[in-house]
Amino acid sequence: MSLIVQKFGGTSVGSIERIEQVADKVASFRADGHDVVVVVSAMAGETNRLIDLAHQIQPRPVPREMDVLVSTGEQVTTALLSMALAKRGQKAKSYNGSQVRILTDSAHTKARIREIDDARLRADLEKGYVLVVAGFQGVDEHGNITTLGRGGSDTTAVALAAALKADECQIYTDVDGVYTTDPRVVDGARRLSQITFEEMLEMASMGSKVLQIRAVEFAGKYHVPLRVLHSFQDGPGTLITVEDSAMETPTIAGIAFNRDEAKLTIEGVPDMPGVAYRILGPVGEANIEVDVIVQNVSHDNTTDFTFTVSRGDLPRAEDVLNAVAKEINAEKVSSDAKIAKVSVVGVGMRSHAGVASQMFRALAEEGINIQMITTSEIKISVIIEEKFLELAVRALHSSFGLDKEPEAENLD
Amino acid sequence: MSLIVQKFGGTSVGSIERIEQVADKVASFRADGHDVVVVVSAMAGETNRLIDLAHQIQPRPVPREMDVLVSTGEQVTTALLSMALAKRGQKAKSYNGSQVRILTDSAHTKARIREIDDARLRADLEKGYVLVVAGFQGVDEHGNITTLGRGGSDTTAVALAAALKADECQIYTDVDGVYTTDPRVVDGARRLSQITFEEMLEMASMGSKVLQIRAVEFAGKYHVPLRVLHSFQDGPGTLITVEDSAMETPTIAGIAFNRDEAKLTIEGVPDMPGVAYRILGPVGEANIEVDVIVQNVSHDNTTDFTFTVSRGDLPRAEDVLNAVAKEINAEKVSSDAKIAKVSVVGVGMRSHAGVASQMFRALAEEGINIQMITTSEIKISVIIEEKFLELAVRALHSSFGLDKEPEAENLD
Repeated sequence: MSLIVQKFGGTSVGSIERIEQVADKVASFRADGHDVVVVVSAMAGETNRLIDLAHQIQPRPVPREMDVLVSTGEQVTTALLSMALAKRGQKAKSYNGSQVRILTDSAHTKARIREIDDARLRADLEKGYVLVVAGFQGVDEHGNITTLGRGGSDTTAVALAAALKADECQIYTDVDGVYTTDPRVVDGARRLSQITFEEMLEMASMGSKVLQIRAVEFAGKYHVPLRVLHSFQDGPGTLITVEDSAMETPTIAGIAFNRDEAKLTIEGVPDMPGVAYRILGPVGEANIEVDVIVQNVSHDNTTDFTFTVSRGDLPRAEDVLNAVAKEINAEKVSSDAKIAKVSVVGVGMRSHAGVASQMFRALAEEGINIQMITTSEIKISVIIEEKFLELAVRALHSSFGLDKEPEAENLD
Repeated sequence: MSLIVQKFGGTSVGSIERIEQVADKVASFRADGHDVVVVVSAMAGETNRLIDLAHQIQPRPVPREMDVLVSTGEQVTTALLSMALAKRGQKAKSYNGSQVRILTDSAHTKARIREIDDARLRADLEKGYVLVVAGFQGVDEHGNITTLGRGGSDTTAVALAAALKADECQIYTDVDGVYTTDPRVVDGARRLSQITFEEMLEMASMGSKVLQIRAVEFAGKYHVPLRVLHSFQDGPGTLITVEDSAMETPTIAGIAFNRDEAKLTIEGVPDMPGVAYRILGPVGEANIEVDVIVQNVSHDNTTDFTFTVSRGDLPRAEDVLNAVAKEINAEKVSSDAKIAKVSVVGVGMRSHAGVASQMFRALAEEGINIQMITTSEIKISVIIEEKFLELAVRALHSSFGLDKEPEAENLD
C-alpha cells in the first residue's frame, strides 16, 4: 500500500460527468489499497468566468480580492468531487488552502508556498479518508487567501506529495505522457516511459506544455517521483525521476521546439563592461521576456548582441532597442520574426561527446542553415529559419534514433 | 459618526451593474463619515446553480460538502464588491466566515452562530476599511465551513451588528419597508416608519417575507436597531425597535395573512392526558410543520382537535392522522384545503381592550364566517374560507384605520 497524490486539471473536472469519471478512477486506486490525496483545479471555464466578472469592474482588480474571487473555483470542485466519492461509498473530505494550511508568502496572484501543515491531512488519511484538496491556493500568515498563479495546481500537488512523503505524484492531463517530440510534427514520436527532471525542465520550457515548470523544479528539489498520465485513458504515462545511474540512459530524451520566437540583433555595440545590462535592463523593465541570448567574441572593440523574444513582443522590443542603440552608440538594430528554435535535450549528452556535431551534421544534410547556437549542460538549441522547422525536427528525431524503443526501457 | 452594518441580498448584488450601485451607496455612507460593514449574499441565481451541480451528483449531497460548495457564492460577491469599492477610492477588505471568525456549531447547512470574534474587524475598521463580509456562512471549532441555511445572511448581519455594537443594522431588500398589509391586496396599505420586534416577528411569520424570522429574533434579543430599506430607492424604510413607551404606539401595526394553509380536524377524541402529544407527535416526526392549533373544551369526555398545515403537506398529514385516529379511538378525521388565515398584529392590543371584538365585528359586517380563532399577546388570528381573504384584509385594514398616517409617526 502506498500514498499517492493525484492532480486533475480543469478539463479533467470540466463537467459533472468528468468529475464522476475522476471519482471512479480515485475509487479504483482506493480499491487497490492505496491512500489517495486528490488535488483539483477549477472546472474548465470557471476561472475565466470569474476573472471576466472582475474585469467588468476594474481592468486591474485589487490582487487580494482577485485571489478571494478565483480561489472559489477550486473550492467548488473539491466539494463536488467529495460528493461523487461519497456516492461511491468512499469516505472523502474537501480541504481548501486555508484548511490544509498551505502557508504562502503574501504575493497575491503569484504567491509562493512556504510551508505545508500536514497534521490534519495525516490524521484524516489514517481515518481512511480520501482527501480532496483545492489546488492553486494557500493562505498567508495573516489569514489572507492567496493563489499561486495560473497552473499552480501542479505545484500544490507536488508540494503536498513532498510534505506527505508520498510514493508518487500523478499529474493527469490530456496527453498520455511526455513524447520524444511533438507527434503532430513527427509520426514516429514516441512516449517516454521515463525522463529526468532536468530533461523535463528543458522540454517543458521549450513548449512541451505538459507540466508547469515550477512543479517540476519543486519535484526535483524534493525528489518527488512525478508521473504524467492521461485523465481518461489507461496507461503507464511517463515517470519523471532523478537521474538513475543504474539505468541505461539514452543519450537524447527528445527534440523540443518553439515556433513563437523572434530575433533582435543590435550590431556594432561598443564592447565595455555593463553593456549587456544596459541593453537587457530596459527590455526587462518593459516586461518583455527574453529567451535565447547570444553574444559572440568582439572585433575592433565592438560586438553584436542577439536575443529572442515572443513574436507578440517584437514591435515593443524594437522600440526599446532603438532607444538603447542611440544611448550606447551602437551601429544598428535588426530583427527577424520568421525564425524558430529547435533543441535536443538529454542528460546523456553530459557523458557522450559528439551530440553537437551529430546535430549539426543532421541539419546540414537537409540544407538547413543555423543562425544561432546556444548550449547548456543537457541541451543544445539552434535558431533556424521557421520554414525549416518541421524538417529539422524530423531529421533530428530520426538521427538520434528516437523513433526506436531503447532496449533498457523495454524492461519496465 | 456611527457604525452601520448593511446587508444586501442576492437580487441587490445580482449583476456587476448592481454591485456597482451598492458600492455607490456604501461610498455615500462613508462620505457622510460613517463606518460601514457590508454583509452580502451570493449573486442571484448563483446558489441555485451550485445546488444544481451537486444534485446532478447526488439527490442528497453530503452536508459538509454542500456547505463548502455553496459558501463560495457569497465569497465571490465579497471580492467583487471590494473591487468596486476600491475603484471608488474606498479602502475595502473582504472577509469570509472563517476569516472573520464566525464560530458556529457543526450542524451543516443549518448551523447556528455561537460566537463572533470581532478583533480583526475592529482593527480594520480603525484603519478606515469598509469591511465586506460573506453572509450566511461560518466555521465550526474544527475549521469546517458551515452555512446558516438559506436567507442566513440577515442573521449574519444582525449578529455582526450585535458583536460590534453597531448603531444600526440596515437590511436592503426589494421593498421600501414593512407595510400595514400587502399593498397588492389593499390599495391603502401604508409603509410603517416604525414597528416593534415582536410585531415584526408576527408579521414575518405570517408571510410578510421581508426578513428572516431568526434575524429578527436575534436583533430583538441583542437590542440591535434594525432597518428595512429598498436597495435602489432612497427613503427611510422601516425601523424595527424595542417597544418605546414614550412613543404613541398605534393599537394595531398591521394585518397579516397566509393563504398557504389547510385545516385538519380529528373529532371525538377521548379527552385524557397526553392525547395532544399522541396526535401531534407523529405529525412532527413526519416533518410536517403545524401552524395554528386549536382545542376547545370537551363534552362527554371527548373533544375535537384542529390544526393547520401547509397545503402541500395536507395529503401526508391526512395519512398520519387517519392512523392516529384508529390508535386513539377517535371518531373521524376531516380536512379542508380552502381556508386562509388573517391576523391583526400590534403590541398596542396589550393595553387596549376591544381589539378582538372590533375585529370580529368588522368581519361579521362583511358576512364572513370565522372557523377558528387563536390569540397571542399581540396577535389575533382567524381562519376563514379562502374566498373571503382579500375582503377580510381590506375590511380589517380600514376598520383599524391603518390607511391613515398616525399622528405620532408624522413627527419623525
